[in-house]
Amino acid sequence: MTGTVAVNGEVRRLEELRLQDFLQSFFFGAGFFETLLVEEGAPMFLARHLARLRESLGAHTGCVHPPPPDVLTPEAVREAMRRCLEADASLGLRFTGVAKLVAGDGRLLLSFSPLPQRAPGEGMVLETAEDRCYRRGDPTLNHKSVSYLRQYAQLGRGTVFVNEAGELCEAPNGNLFFLVGDAVVTPLLEAPCLPGVIRSVLLEQGRLGGMPVVERTVLRGQVEDVRGCVLTNSVSLALAVPRLLGRELPGSHALAENARAVVREYARREG
Amino acid sequence: MTGTVAVNGEVRRLEELRLQDFLQSFFFGAGFFETLLVEEGAPMFLARHLARLRESLGAHTGCVHPPPPDVLTPEAVREAMRRCLEADASLGLRFTGVAKLVAGDGRLLLSFSPLPQRAPGEGMVLETAEDRCYRRGDPTLNHKSVSYLRQYAQLGRGTVFVNEAGELCEAPNGNLFFLVGDAVVTPLLEAPCLPGVIRSVLLEQGRLGGMPVVERTVLRGQVEDVRGCVLTNSVSLALAVPRLLGRELPGSHALAENARAVVREYARREG
Repeated sequence: MTGTVAVNGEVRRLEELRLQDFLQSFFFGAGFFETLLVEEGAPMFLARHLARLRESLGAHTGCVHPPPPDVLTPEAVREAMRRCLEADASLGLRFTGVAKLVAGDGRLLLSFSPLPQRAPGEGMVLETAEDRCYRRGDPTLNHKSVSYLRQYAQLGRGTVFVNEAGELCEAPNGNLFFLVGDAVVTPLLEAPCLPGVIRSVLLEQGRLGGMPVVERTVLRGQVEDVRGCVLTNSVSLALAVPRLLGRELPGSHALAENARAVVREYARREG
Repeated sequence: MTGTVAVNGEVRRLEELRLQDFLQSFFFGAGFFETLLVEEGAPMFLARHLARLRESLGAHTGCVHPPPPDVLTPEAVREAMRRCLEADASLGLRFTGVAKLVAGDGRLLLSFSPLPQRAPGEGMVLETAEDRCYRRGDPTLNHKSVSYLRQYAQLGRGTVFVNEAGELCEAPNGNLFFLVGDAVVTPLLEAPCLPGVIRSVLLEQGRLGGMPVVERTVLRGQVEDVRGCVLTNSVSLALAVPRLLGRELPGSHALAENARAVVREYARREG
């Protein structure tokens, strides 16, 4: 993480920030976050990320203290970002990397970090089903809160969260899309899973590789019928899953490439 | 919360602490906490709280950065506490209130707050079953992590968490004991629930009000057979639940009083 941040739009140095000003998030996990891809200084799908953040804050009035509404607009965040990039020579106005927003304790904290190192075309093998944690219909998992230990503990372990009904839900770092039958299927929000920004883009597009994209339950037992799998998140956009719970899925790479093209086209249109 | 704290045994002012030094807890909820009752300067069940903290840290090596082992001993925490109380005239060596320990980011943070305001003999009405969140066997809920939003959002709302099998699990702020049949029954850790310090004391004692104390599943449908209910936690020790999910439980007050007596006797013996 880099040293230049913004708090409610004001450029600050990370080392100046006091724990005291973020205690509810720190003690109780009472905050929400967004992770955005920034390319050449431009944050991708910023309006969608802020809409999700506002929705989570709106669903937790009384327990999470929201930032002032005027710092939660795309214009305000773009301006805060511009000021940070301009102020820090190690970032610069053409910065490409990751921006993170954390909302809680009446503040919106904007910070930056480099892109994760990943070889081009590298996929994400998902080999482990974690089937003790997720509860079907759990509304808390529809929000990207800093109460994130459950996901954090599984990062990089090739985990798929499975609910008590044996339904595949999501990976710790993204939503899942499965090529099964003649459709591309992604689990319902009630599985539960995060309402991912890339997930919603692919559902809005409605077609991928010539097939319809639909929300539908995917049971663990159906993995043998899956011919391709893609993991989506806002930083990597779409990653091929070349192996899923013991099954080789060579079809994943083409599917991921199609998904990235759709996402790029949406991002271009939304500016 | 008061302004004098200790970080890894060193007395500090809260306002001097930098967010930067607690980022993993702040961003990802990757830390654990303990809340202790302090009476006349003496922390109750300190060794038990530290044992639980070490157990949670041990179960999360690789994702939560533990404090140095030498700050996690009862002697070290007693000494840190003594130094804080001595340094702050608003606390003083005879301080009675709440101490909080947070372990994460390679640090143990000790802080203090006043006792919650509660009228003597006041109980805790539990009127709402939250039955969408808890998953039977979820191991993450056996640890008191700062990923606490699920519980925090329900504090003070009279909530009982119920799992998908209809089993009563716990309240957001404590374990539950039910007087049912000829036993005092508390849910299994697998319900799931926190391995509460007061819970373990009552189970060790093994008898309450002349009846055995046992771990056993309590179904929501069994509430009509419950004749008393007690909520236990380390600050209030044992609170009567005079109404549970629509059922009046006048027997709760005597049961809570018995429980408090048992806990006080254990605390006296353990020093």
